[in-house]
Amino acid sequence: MEIQRYKLTIAYRGTAYHGWQKQLPNKYYKGPAPTGGLEGIPTVQETLAVAIQAVVKHQVNLVGSSRTDTGVHAKGQVAHFDTHMTQIPLIGLQRAINSRLPADIDVRRIEPVPPTFDAISSTASKRYQYFLWNDRRKPVYFSDLAWHWWHRLDVDAMKDAAARFVGTHDFASFAKSGHGRESTVRTVYACDISYRPPRFVFGVEGSGFLWNMVRIMVGTLVQVGMGTYEPEEITRMLESKDRTAAGHTAPAHGLFLQWIKFKPADVADAPQGDQN
Amino acid sequence: MEIQRYKLTIAYRGTAYHGWQKQLPNKYYKGPAPTGGLEGIPTVQETLAVAIQAVVKHQVNLVGSSRTDTGVHAKGQVAHFDTHMTQIPLIGLQRAINSRLPADIDVRRIEPVPPTFDAISSTASKRYQYFLWNDRRKPVYFSDLAWHWWHRLDVDAMKDAAARFVGTHDFASFAKSGHGRESTVRTVYACDISYRPPRFVFGVEGSGFLWNMVRIMVGTLVQVGMGTYEPEEITRMLESKDRTAAGHTAPAHGLFLQWIKFKPADVADAPQGDQN
Repeated sequence: MEIQRYKLTIAYRGTAYHGWQKQLPNKYYKGPAPTGGLEGIPTVQETLAVAIQAVVKHQVNLVGSSRTDTGVHAKGQVAHFDTHMTQIPLIGLQRAINSRLPADIDVRRIEPVPPTFDAISSTASKRYQYFLWNDRRKPVYFSDLAWHWWHRLDVDAMKDAAARFVGTHDFASFAKSGHGRESTVRTVYACDISYRPPRFVFGVEGSGFLWNMVRIMVGTLVQVGMGTYEPEEITRMLESKDRTAAGHTAPAHGLFLQWIKFKPADVADAPQGDQN
Repeated sequence: MEIQRYKLTIAYRGTAYHGWQKQLPNKYYKGPAPTGGLEGIPTVQETLAVAIQAVVKHQVNLVGSSRTDTGVHAKGQVAHFDTHMTQIPLIGLQRAINSRLPADIDVRRIEPVPPTFDAISSTASKRYQYFLWNDRRKPVYFSDLAWHWWHRLDVDAMKDAAARFVGTHDFASFAKSGHGRESTVRTVYACDISYRPPRFVFGVEGSGFLWNMVRIMVGTLVQVGMGTYEPEEITRMLESKDRTAAGHTAPAHGLFLQWIKFKPADVADAPQGDQN
């Protein structure tokens, strides 16, 4: 019986979900269980798995590339699962799954991939976007999709500071404790800021990210814009390897997982059969 | 003690509210109490009144121009209230109220008006907008702000039909029973459709509107676009004065109250004093 692995590209609005997946406290985690008080609120992964299982008629192990936190959104989350139900045409499979999903989750793409593909270990780079609404007027219609922060910001200083994140650094100062990663060294390929008043969009592309890394980077950049820190201080913050040396953590609801790139070798040679 | 009347222009996202105001069943209303099952869900009017009262330090009677239904949004709802707390500068009053409101309600403007101004009886005309997302892909990030309807639509036929609503007609066929109005004759000044794929925006401007009038007009226009009705049938529907002669009611969440115009005489001569 042929088993086929499928790669899903998913868009969702995280507002109504307890993140992609319940965060399991690990040995490094000091705080309360992240699920505290949120029992009963579904995760995107659970909701999506239920829809897939209703279509393929068997349990699936749905593995997501990024564990987005509660309230965080995605334009291009990626996940994989295996099934022997390979006789379902791809487009039919996608529509059947989407018809069983709520309005705030949509499978944008579904592709067969070789068993070498793994949504987590095959990841080459990711890009996040963070939206900030810098106006006195509230973003009434998208209050859950952008951080509303009204204070005059020095854009040039922010861009100067943002550039200092680019490169391979130890991002320990920009990680929430309990991230549970052995190494806190990451490579940031790009950290850009676009400003079309009153909207700021921060873009951060990197090899991988630590827990709350983008949100702490954005919170710190906003404090640079307010004059709390000088752009030069970013370097010192990185060197200190101490969370208290960096700035505040920006709220979750302004964050979007934009896209994920994978190692070409792992996605190559996808069997083209009766899936198409 | 000087009493001053204030006119508020308000924007809100109706998703989390039980409409502007709880609809009181009237002698014409046949169905279940509209509040059925929704007790505990706040209305926009209640939420706004609480914020105003916290600022002016006394009970206020907040009168809104349009009783938008549950899930309906507003860019320019208008309401009025009276207070003797005229020593509060206008801008301070607005900011104090907004700081006490949730992220999905924002007072866009506050102006002193003469006691002749009444948010309901001074209304000259109103314009509603209805947003339709005509694509297979779901509007994941604004699923509560547009009707997601995927079916090829004949735009020309819809525009032809829309034009037939313009003028003074008896809109009994386009009113939900229980509207409780003596007369169902209304004047529609404009009924336009803009289409920038995949987004349709219906705009309806009129002297006044019956319960669900815009939503039934939009639902019927979409059925014209699908070929269920010919554009010419709009005239027959109006003449029949029978709700069953018209089409479906479009869902509430695509509807926005865009703006309200008032009789110039009623808003004139606003006292310009220490309010400014």
